[in-house]
Amino acid sequence: MIKMKAAEDLSKELKEISVAEFFEKNRHLLGYENSTRALITIVKEAVDNSLDACEEAGILPEIKVSLKELEDSVFKITVEDNGPGIIEDKVHLAFGKLLYGSKFHRLRQSRGTQGIGISGAILYSQLTTGKPIRISSSTGKKINTIEMLIDVVKNAPSIISQQGESNQKKWHGIKIEMQAKGRYIEGFQSIIEYLRQTAIMNPYAKIIFKTPNDHQHTFSRVINKLPPKPKEIKPHPYGVEIGILRRMIQTTKSKNILSFLMRDFSRVGKRSATQILKLAKIDNKKKPHSLTHDEIDKIHNAMHLVKLIAPPTDCLSPVGDEELKKGLEKEIKAEHYVSVSRPTSVYRGMPFSVECALAYGGDLENTRRVNVLRFANKVPLLYNQGDCAITKAVVQTDWRRYGISQSFESLPNGPLAILVHFVSAWVPYTSEGKQAIASYPEIIKEIKLALQDAGRKMKLYISKRRRKQQMKMRQNLFEKYIPEVSEGISKISETSKEKIRTGLEKILESGAKKYEKEDQD
Amino acid sequence: MIKMKAAEDLSKELKEISVAEFFEKNRHLLGYENSTRALITIVKEAVDNSLDACEEAGILPEIKVSLKELEDSVFKITVEDNGPGIIEDKVHLAFGKLLYGSKFHRLRQSRGTQGIGISGAILYSQLTTGKPIRISSSTGKKINTIEMLIDVVKNAPSIISQQGESNQKKWHGIKIEMQAKGRYIEGFQSIIEYLRQTAIMNPYAKIIFKTPNDHQHTFSRVINKLPPKPKEIKPHPYGVEIGILRRMIQTTKSKNILSFLMRDFSRVGKRSATQILKLAKIDNKKKPHSLTHDEIDKIHNAMHLVKLIAPPTDCLSPVGDEELKKGLEKEIKAEHYVSVSRPTSVYRGMPFSVECALAYGGDLENTRRVNVLRFANKVPLLYNQGDCAITKAVVQTDWRRYGISQSFESLPNGPLAILVHFVSAWVPYTSEGKQAIASYPEIIKEIKLALQDAGRKMKLYISKRRRKQQMKMRQNLFEKYIPEVSEGISKISETSKEKIRTGLEKILESGAKKYEKEDQD
Repeated sequence: MIKMKAAEDLSKELKEISVAEFFEKNRHLLGYENSTRALITIVKEAVDNSLDACEEAGILPEIKVSLKELEDSVFKITVEDNGPGIIEDKVHLAFGKLLYGSKFHRLRQSRGTQGIGISGAILYSQLTTGKPIRISSSTGKKINTIEMLIDVVKNAPSIISQQGESNQKKWHGIKIEMQAKGRYIEGFQSIIEYLRQTAIMNPYAKIIFKTPNDHQHTFSRVINKLPPKPKEIKPHPYGVEIGILRRMIQTTKSKNILSFLMRDFSRVGKRSATQILKLAKIDNKKKPHSLTHDEIDKIHNAMHLVKLIAPPTDCLSPVGDEELKKGLEKEIKAEHYVSVSRPTSVYRGMPFSVECALAYGGDLENTRRVNVLRFANKVPLLYNQGDCAITKAVVQTDWRRYGISQSFESLPNGPLAILVHFVSAWVPYTSEGKQAIASYPEIIKEIKLALQDAGRKMKLYISKRRRKQQMKMRQNLFEKYIPEVSEGISKISETSKEKIRTGLEKILESGAKKYEKEDQD
Repeated sequence: MIKMKAAEDLSKELKEISVAEFFEKNRHLLGYENSTRALITIVKEAVDNSLDACEEAGILPEIKVSLKELEDSVFKITVEDNGPGIIEDKVHLAFGKLLYGSKFHRLRQSRGTQGIGISGAILYSQLTTGKPIRISSSTGKKINTIEMLIDVVKNAPSIISQQGESNQKKWHGIKIEMQAKGRYIEGFQSIIEYLRQTAIMNPYAKIIFKTPNDHQHTFSRVINKLPPKPKEIKPHPYGVEIGILRRMIQTTKSKNILSFLMRDFSRVGKRSATQILKLAKIDNKKKPHSLTHDEIDKIHNAMHLVKLIAPPTDCLSPVGDEELKKGLEKEIKAEHYVSVSRPTSVYRGMPFSVECALAYGGDLENTRRVNVLRFANKVPLLYNQGDCAITKAVVQTDWRRYGISQSFESLPNGPLAILVHFVSAWVPYTSEGKQAIASYPEIIKEIKLALQDAGRKMKLYISKRRRKQQMKMRQNLFEKYIPEVSEGISKISETSKEKIRTGLEKILESGAKKYEKEDQD
């Protein structure tokens, strides 16, 4: 009976794990695997939230970020926005509870979705310094400031102090201050780089960054208008799996199954709904809650058989191919730029879209490896490049077709920069740290199509450039022999050497001009 | 006041997200991003649990896995073990609740830790088929069988049926049956490959796999003894962060701070504890719960100043370098094998160890790219190679030093296979799908040291092989000229051509023998 004893002992140890404890222990999942990245992640989570909040409230974002080194490797991080703020009795929950948020259950493009990001930052802050976080919030009336920690075992906020003050300047927004262990750097993967790329994709935002060495970087607003606000959509029948449908039917407020189909899904009108129920052999008037598992299975099958138009795409807010090209031009000094905006695709009923831009030549001539700039829902992705669907799509594209060298299953070589922007109501990140897109085959396929479109456009330029170079080489060669040739012809034709030489030079010149003209047409 | 309205509207939408909902939507985090990988993940989660349970109970594992295609793309997956089973009133929780388990709060090497794996498999199963899972469990007495689903919104099991039956054969263990959408393949990333690699690292387990096409693969037990059971350890003071220390002090059962330090940590005796408190200027008799934040900070600082021996390493159960080499020999037909077992290292107070083996030549001569076999706590890692600390360590190692060609920042080229095994009481996976190790710098460093040790060993062989090849080439060249040389010498020395020829051939032969002998010494 040793074994039974073991079973009992082992079973006794079974217990619940708080989600905060889980992420505290596995903090690298949230982007805290080293002290450099930790600081970047804290800033990123706060800035992403601020941008989302401003856009939702229709406010042009102005965000102030500042870092100060308090003692060796301990930083004070402050992020302040001019967003709508959060009402008083929700602030502590929005910041002090993981898996708590407003964006998870919604189908609409936004930076955050998980309800983990900023509370994860607080978790890291208190873990490494033990200091509470300070949050001021105002919706335009008084300013409320709380100091709090997260009770990790309960996954709940624990408020230490709370106070209100008058708000004569009618400030609205959120200001957070926290202390955390970290290492500050500038360069390739850094806060400045994150903010710079953010500014490129969000040209309507103003971002001011004060570094620990007291330098101030201002990323100015270059467009004074917010993009159209993405609209929330309902799930599309084609993307709904049986498990989800069952839950929707269990919890719907619709009185009969016909109105359930029409009200709880996008693109289902009375005709399609009737058709679905006819195929499933279910009475239109049947109450959703009374359906059996078997009946739900039949409805699920029928939903995929009826012809429906694709889900609406106004839940997305892509940047636009021209804007993307401008962004890349600002970023990288190259000879030529192309950009592509793919039509919206649908995966699991979820619309998504891929935009991409390429830059070639110029400053890029001296780079060792192709530069890939990755973005998802306007947020730059700085880490985990190797495991990102964007990188995989780049590697799987045959760049040699477009005149760019590439070895087997590698990033292409040559003076090329690649920018890819993925927008979706749901971005499948490879981890909660949200730095890479998971390799769903449908997503890789669509990114590859965008890269191929852009590659073909760039090929035209590369071929011309190559022809031009060859022409130039031939001209140079010809030029070199003009004196010799002139002398030869002069002897044969009994014409002055000088005259022939001038004639040949003219021919060469007009030939070059003709070529250039053709090239421009 | 538009903004205030916005704030209120937005704040109203804030709500809690269940951890089951989170993973249902982000199922790729658990390894369900496509239908091929989904089946592998289900089998892996069940088999990993079975191996852990058997080892903990001291039972030699015998695991039966079977797959059956019920209809197009829908499979029935069955996994049965001979482990200790789970007591009746805990089964539904162990399987039907995410973040529920026995291994999270424990410092000891095991395959599972998160309390997510098997419930994640059930989540995927019910999402794609809507069918309940069937679990039979016995601790040796009667057999209890339940059918259940997971209530996703509540993250709780929902039992559909429950029954007990007598157990005349005194079977003990767990048998689970579930249905899920999937795609079955064999080859590089597959269930067979996962089981084959599992068998290599767990030679004391017997695994029987019945494929959907009714083939049966048996991975036999080759060692009839379980490895020593890893022991649970307490946290080491050097690895405890201020946030954790504070929580430990809040929840300890120790009556005074001196006994807290001695009882709740490893490697702290009375002398070290007294020394810590003296440095922190805290009275030994002070009650832990009465300490202020400031006092806890002082203790935390003092804990890092006192000299303590490294944490005990018996919480780990590495495979051993010889066993590892044997495993690789079984796996790959090569000319030469080397292996290395690094001494235990400590990171954040957590002991970990790296073992590695290399194979060179033989069948590997024809491979295009180096084969990297990755393992963590005896579990093969089949996916996310690009983002794994092991791959990064391989890429960052300078293989040209050891006679193996490699281009800049790439995997080496040539007839080489690399096996790396990482063991730790805590493996920082890059996602809950547990297929890659996060890039903590300390871990990459230690893996690189192991690879360098192995590389140096392999270099000896590669150099010898190269010298041998050169010798051979020289011999061949010499052999070719023997007739000509013999004739020449014959004329000069007036000796018969045949005699000289035989003499030269003998010299050549003994030279080669001498060389070979030297080579063996």
